[in-house]
Amino acid sequence: MTSFSRFTALAESLPPTVPFVGPETQERARGAVFAARLGANESGFGPAPSVIAAIAEAAPLSWRYGDPESYDLRQALAAHLGIKLDEIVIGEGVDGLLGLAVRLIVEKGTKVVTSLGGYPTFNYHVVGFGGTLVTVPYRGDHEDLDGLLEAVRRENAAIVYLANPDNPMASWHDAASVTAFARALPETTLLVLDEAYGELAPAGTLPPVADLAGMPNVIRFRTFSKAYGLAGHRVGYCFGTAETMSRFHRVRNHFGMSRIGQAAALAALKDQDWLNSVVARVSAARERIGAIGRANGLEPLPSATNFVALDCGDPVRAKALLDQLVADGIFIRMPGVAPQSRCIRVSVGPDPELDLLERALPEALKRIG
Amino acid sequence: MTSFSRFTALAESLPPTVPFVGPETQERARGAVFAARLGANESGFGPAPSVIAAIAEAAPLSWRYGDPESYDLRQALAAHLGIKLDEIVIGEGVDGLLGLAVRLIVEKGTKVVTSLGGYPTFNYHVVGFGGTLVTVPYRGDHEDLDGLLEAVRRENAAIVYLANPDNPMASWHDAASVTAFARALPETTLLVLDEAYGELAPAGTLPPVADLAGMPNVIRFRTFSKAYGLAGHRVGYCFGTAETMSRFHRVRNHFGMSRIGQAAALAALKDQDWLNSVVARVSAARERIGAIGRANGLEPLPSATNFVALDCGDPVRAKALLDQLVADGIFIRMPGVAPQSRCIRVSVGPDPELDLLERALPEALKRIG
Repeated sequence: MTSFSRFTALAESLPPTVPFVGPETQERARGAVFAARLGANESGFGPAPSVIAAIAEAAPLSWRYGDPESYDLRQALAAHLGIKLDEIVIGEGVDGLLGLAVRLIVEKGTKVVTSLGGYPTFNYHVVGFGGTLVTVPYRGDHEDLDGLLEAVRRENAAIVYLANPDNPMASWHDAASVTAFARALPETTLLVLDEAYGELAPAGTLPPVADLAGMPNVIRFRTFSKAYGLAGHRVGYCFGTAETMSRFHRVRNHFGMSRIGQAAALAALKDQDWLNSVVARVSAARERIGAIGRANGLEPLPSATNFVALDCGDPVRAKALLDQLVADGIFIRMPGVAPQSRCIRVSVGPDPELDLLERALPEALKRIG
Repeated sequence: MTSFSRFTALAESLPPTVPFVGPETQERARGAVFAARLGANESGFGPAPSVIAAIAEAAPLSWRYGDPESYDLRQALAAHLGIKLDEIVIGEGVDGLLGLAVRLIVEKGTKVVTSLGGYPTFNYHVVGFGGTLVTVPYRGDHEDLDGLLEAVRRENAAIVYLANPDNPMASWHDAASVTAFARALPETTLLVLDEAYGELAPAGTLPPVADLAGMPNVIRFRTFSKAYGLAGHRVGYCFGTAETMSRFHRVRNHFGMSRIGQAAALAALKDQDWLNSVVARVSAARERIGAIGRANGLEPLPSATNFVALDCGDPVRAKALLDQLVADGIFIRMPGVAPQSRCIRVSVGPDPELDLLERALPEALKRIG
């Protein structure tokens, strides 16, 4: 079977690999579902009951396209953040929005700076549009702000990616450091500031909205997939100056937002009590994962997210432990690049799932020797 | 306020216009909701009760990302169509999939052939990736197969778009003509065959799957948004040779499919009784819209879709009538290009909405004189 012959040279050059293999794919390969789903940084505490009710209520109108302006949701977010409607763009998760931002700026050879071992889906988009990635090693398991800035200047990069808090290490910088980093960037470099885990970070981690407002070269990305527990609906948003954000409307899939997803996100935003309760439960679960790790000789790294990196000492041991836990029905993931890959990455979840981890971990460590 | 300065030249060249203004946007401008929603070719008959139940059942697991392989849905579709799993790609509606197909093939100056007044969202994607549209006038309110073929050969086009049945005219070609068209194309031209309305067309309209199988330069696009009544979930699919389809995986947003949407589409596919009942109700509603038109001197064009084009004689009168109906709370649309724009386009809906149309139309015609 031959392929169509006129795909672009860029398309033909792209690797067929995907950023992440889904847990369902692994389950099909194993021939069994995972007993504990602790690998995708989802929120096992679920969406609010009010959100589940809103979904059921919206279901009969599934026949209607969603509002292509996501007006109600944008308005609610604008009020929540204290910004204007045209400073916000809604999209199919942070992943979808990252793809649009990259498309607007990256063409063949455009230099883009990120951390070595940073978020793979961002890299996937950069490569997918022909850009050239320039990577900066982590420093002490943190994204290296000075190193990123130096690389931006050296390479005259068009974009620099920073996740705060970080995935996969769960580390974070304080708001003042991030603001200083943003202000030190050349105006010709866009800061893609991924704050997907922002709601779960300690106070003082996210720069106040006003501190980065008015900067045409800063876009902040957030999501309903993490703390709000709506990963399955694909609702993310980003915000920046109205003029910069206006470019998204030239390329986005206007009718791409699910109607139910918009309704679910709107209900989630309104239920801040649930969010607060989730933040507390995530914090407790992080503590417990840390304690389980420590009890087994695996030091937990400090976390500002809904997952914990457990230090296994070296990448070979970490990979062996991951494979063993996955074989035992515990879905987890690990960083892809050394030295971060000396860790396994365990997402929070409710106690019954952490009970399974607690039981499986010592056995798994024994097996890998 | 200035914008970020390093958007690509292509991004800066794109117009800020959107393919369609949503009814909600018009409602906000009017300050009132529409009494009848008959403009977006949605299915006012709704999704099946079994689908609504499936959505409610899936809601509590909204915290999980959807399966990035959409495996269960792809497998069900493969069985339904009698093809293989790797010959199908699921995406965020036909619109999303059209964007990916265009991205894979179109770069600056790539020639793409479509009908003058054909589907605007396809054109939006072509322009968005820097392609050059070559348009062929409709002939007798049908897409002109001979004209399209001639343009493809003359321009050495990389893509030709054909909607069968057509939107916005609701006309169709029989399967044999479409198959002959596909086979006459150069192998270096991809046929984007948009069959979004296929389930609603008379028998003998869609070429049997086997008749176009094995052709690397044919991709067929279908959706759960129309007959299945799930526009709000954004679930479309396309199929072709495995080798051609594999290219989508290099650029698609792997975790972009809503989990609830996958569950809803799977339930919808299983409920073919509901589909059949909707097909019958759509057919009856088409007849009724035609009768309402005729009773008011507006000749209905034959329709193989869930909407009817009513001939108003000339574009000025059609536009005046559309504006009047919209002002009266009846949401409809119309073709954008002459001579098709002598028509208004009315989507099917349940009787209470058509009652409103029946009442409003003679009054509106009187007002516009």
